[in-house]
Formats: sequence, structure tokens, C-alpha cells
Amino acid sequence: MRKRQIRKPGEHLIEVLATNLRAMRHAKGFSQEELAARCGLHRTYIGSVERGERNVTLSTLEVLASVLGVSVPELLTSRRPDDKRNSTD
Amino acid sequence: MRKRQIRKPGEHLIEVLATNLRAMRHAKGFSQEELAARCGLHRTYIGSVERGERNVTLSTLEVLASVLGVSVPELLTSRRPDDKRNSTD
Repeated sequence: MRKRQIRKPGEHLIEVLATNLRAMRHAKGFSQEELAARCGLHRTYIGSVERGERNVTLSTLEVLASVLGVSVPELLTSRRPDDKRNSTD
Repeated sequence: MRKRQIRKPGEHLIEVLATNLRAMRHAKGFSQEELAARCGLHRTYIGSVERGERNVTLSTLEVLASVLGVSVPELLTSRRPDDKRNSTD
């Protein structure tokens, strides 16, 4: 039987989002300021999401994903370093 | 060539969430009341999410997913057969 722990709400996912947002923003070559402008958000808001300080809403996730060219599920899926899919980069 | 439209924030995903939440709750045999109690939320709140009226936060998504035994990305991924995305470049 599989064990499943009830996590503290938000803690895990907020970290996954923070890590992915920063990585995907860098992959696009956007500064926080540029991403913010494209999303219609404030630069300091992007910074706070990347520091895992925000319990963001679905609509914000959708805008971020759209501007970054990914899906919201992708934005929320952990891409752990030991999960080697790309051997060459 | 890939076309990507900036969607109205929230509209699409909120519908996906509403449909999935109802289907996954039924699959578990939970009433709205029972799901709400397990999540520490109010029954009317669950109802409003299932009607696509709520711009829910990450922490709420995480609690819902955890109680339903799915991941948040699964909760936000459309499972409608006509909504498959064939990216034929």
C-alpha cells in the first residue's frame, strides 16, 4: 500500500513553482522586469514568487505559463536535477 | 508553426479544474460535504469551485489534490477526449 502524506498546504508546490519560474524565465532570457511587463504584473511580484513567498492564484499561473510558452501543469511539475532527461545541454 | 494565444486569465484552467474536481470527487465517492470536511474547507466553497467561480490559490489546489490522491498538475490537466493537443509543427 502506498503511503501518502498530507503536506503543509502550499509549501511544496510553492517551491516547485519558484524554482521553475526562475529557470524558465532564464531560459527565455527575460529579466524579472521584462517578464513582469509581459504578464502585466509588477517586477517585485515576480521576485516574490521566485522566492516562494506567494500563494499565487490560477489566473496568475495561467498568465505566467502563457508568457513563458509552457502549460500550467508544466510550471507546477518538479524538474529534479537527478531526473536526467537531457544528457547534453 | 505553432500558434499560441494569450488566453483570458483563468477562464480555461478554471473550467478544467471545475470538471476534474467534480469527476475526481465522484470517482472517490465523496459528496461535496465530505470532500470539504476532509480538506478543511466549506461545502459551498467546493460547490463554487466546481461551478468554475473561484480563482483558487496554490495552497487550496494542493489540499484538494492531496485529499483526492492526485497531483496538482493532474488536477489542472484537461482529460476531455476532444481537447487533446496535437502539436503538429
